[in-house]
Amino acid sequence: MLKAEYKERGPVPQDVIEAVEFTAPAPQHDEILVELQASPINPSDVLTLTGLYGILPPLPAIGGNEGVGKVVSVGEKVEHFKPGQSVLLPVGIGTWSTHIVAPAKKFIPLPDGADPQQLSMLSINPPTASLMLSEFMPLKEGDWVIQNAANSAVGNYLIQLARLRGLKTVNIVRRESLIEPLTKAGADVVLVDGDDLVKRVRKATEKAEIQLAIDAVGGTASNRLADCLASQGTLVNYGMMSGEAAQVSSANLIFKDITVKGFWLAIWFQRATKEAQQALYNELAMLIATGKLKAPIDRIYKVAEIKDAVAYAAQGERNGKVLITA
Amino acid sequence: MLKAEYKERGPVPQDVIEAVEFTAPAPQHDEILVELQASPINPSDVLTLTGLYGILPPLPAIGGNEGVGKVVSVGEKVEHFKPGQSVLLPVGIGTWSTHIVAPAKKFIPLPDGADPQQLSMLSINPPTASLMLSEFMPLKEGDWVIQNAANSAVGNYLIQLARLRGLKTVNIVRRESLIEPLTKAGADVVLVDGDDLVKRVRKATEKAEIQLAIDAVGGTASNRLADCLASQGTLVNYGMMSGEAAQVSSANLIFKDITVKGFWLAIWFQRATKEAQQALYNELAMLIATGKLKAPIDRIYKVAEIKDAVAYAAQGERNGKVLITA
Repeated sequence: MLKAEYKERGPVPQDVIEAVEFTAPAPQHDEILVELQASPINPSDVLTLTGLYGILPPLPAIGGNEGVGKVVSVGEKVEHFKPGQSVLLPVGIGTWSTHIVAPAKKFIPLPDGADPQQLSMLSINPPTASLMLSEFMPLKEGDWVIQNAANSAVGNYLIQLARLRGLKTVNIVRRESLIEPLTKAGADVVLVDGDDLVKRVRKATEKAEIQLAIDAVGGTASNRLADCLASQGTLVNYGMMSGEAAQVSSANLIFKDITVKGFWLAIWFQRATKEAQQALYNELAMLIATGKLKAPIDRIYKVAEIKDAVAYAAQGERNGKVLITA
Repeated sequence: MLKAEYKERGPVPQDVIEAVEFTAPAPQHDEILVELQASPINPSDVLTLTGLYGILPPLPAIGGNEGVGKVVSVGEKVEHFKPGQSVLLPVGIGTWSTHIVAPAKKFIPLPDGADPQQLSMLSINPPTASLMLSEFMPLKEGDWVIQNAANSAVGNYLIQLARLRGLKTVNIVRRESLIEPLTKAGADVVLVDGDDLVKRVRKATEKAEIQLAIDAVGGTASNRLADCLASQGTLVNYGMMSGEAAQVSSANLIFKDITVKGFWLAIWFQRATKEAQQALYNELAMLIATGKLKAPIDRIYKVAEIKDAVAYAAQGERNGKVLITA
């Protein structure tokens, strides 16, 4: 048994984490023992290792915050879980571990036959994409949304969820080669970032009044999105891939009356009712289980290869998510 | 008679504007002829000359957007204005002119004996300061507000209005020498900008939860204000003295849930009822006429000296407003 542990945080994430041997205890009473099937490396996981994330667990800690596993054995008081069954791992438990023991009530049973790799990415990115489309303004069928980093996992989910809701998306990317896959995924417009972005967006959308911009990049890229917004539009920042503060010109803020806000799933969880949370997850789990919502997967690594996996995930140029498996 | 005219816009504002001779026509019918008493050079006037403002008048144009004058003569149908009387000039009419002719109904009569220099600054900066304190969130007595460029005209008005409303202000400046005058003007805390600002603000306010930040600078100064805000606070940008886009970190936007908005008086005017506008101006005119609200004046130039006046106003280091007089 191996777990991907870090005892300190540092600027090079693969340097601080390593796979260490351990022996999971046999599950007692209401606990179950689960073997990892898949757990993604999210940008927030990398930022947690470098110390730049908004919540940092006490050290030492195990990496990973979401995933899917298969039940190996159950404690004597457990009734509703059986060996062989797939379950959603508890969020934030440290999921980059070949084996996990925790109280059964923290796991959510998954439908038989659903793809464990796709479901391993359910807990964080799909609700982020879904809520950014719904929490900031009422959008109606035919309305446009613009986003950058459109090839990220959140970006991919956002394209699909927007299409399911009848919204249209302008997707900003950094490479020409991403136009085809994103168009296939349901993007209405895909454009490569650059200085004349406003002009190209206006042309591609036939001068649509875009009210919502979703920004995962920060720096000057934020302002290029704001430039594309209509008066009184809202820019939502949820990431800092550029490593720089979001920049928005006074012209956009003052003369165009643009509002800039941030989105963090952790805050939504604090404020939303249990019922709202459950309804959102049920909807998204169903969409993923039926193949209507999916994310591209670039590579799969074993827990033993955690340093390579994190190094690969931390560099920008990928074509999908990096997953960890037992 | 002289008017300060510009036929083109350009990066050096004093290069494009010049005093030119003209002859004002005698007032006809419902018109009045007014001689300029005082008209300020606002930052927006300089930005209009350089072409960076949100509304640009057609060329050629006369500079200046607010002021006070004395009635010289009136048309034969004018009943309520008399020679010698002080009046508020119409906003946006081109006020850097020794003489102005326009329909009487566009002017507002002023109380006898009130200071024309102070009243010449009524129309733009006091309502900006007042509305930024009231339009973004309900504040109650004892609440703190933080602002930078606290020595600007808006900053000075904001200090006084906040004090009149029982609010407390943290004022960020760039020079030690401004601490004393701003404290005399009613500032609760005055601090020189710098990297450890958050720490000093927390100490000076005894860790007050500051919900509103007012930013006239942009660039990294915006983020230093955002750093001082409590969770869910709002940063309002109304100027770009740094010449740079406002920067706000993802940590402030995402993890601290800060909202960034802009304020522009022109937009407020479009949306507010005539009654709301009148009520605001009545309140502010009364405060200025009674000496409860005032702004420091640095220098006074004649229309003939418009190039020197604009050059002096456009450079940053002043201790009050630059006024133009006939």
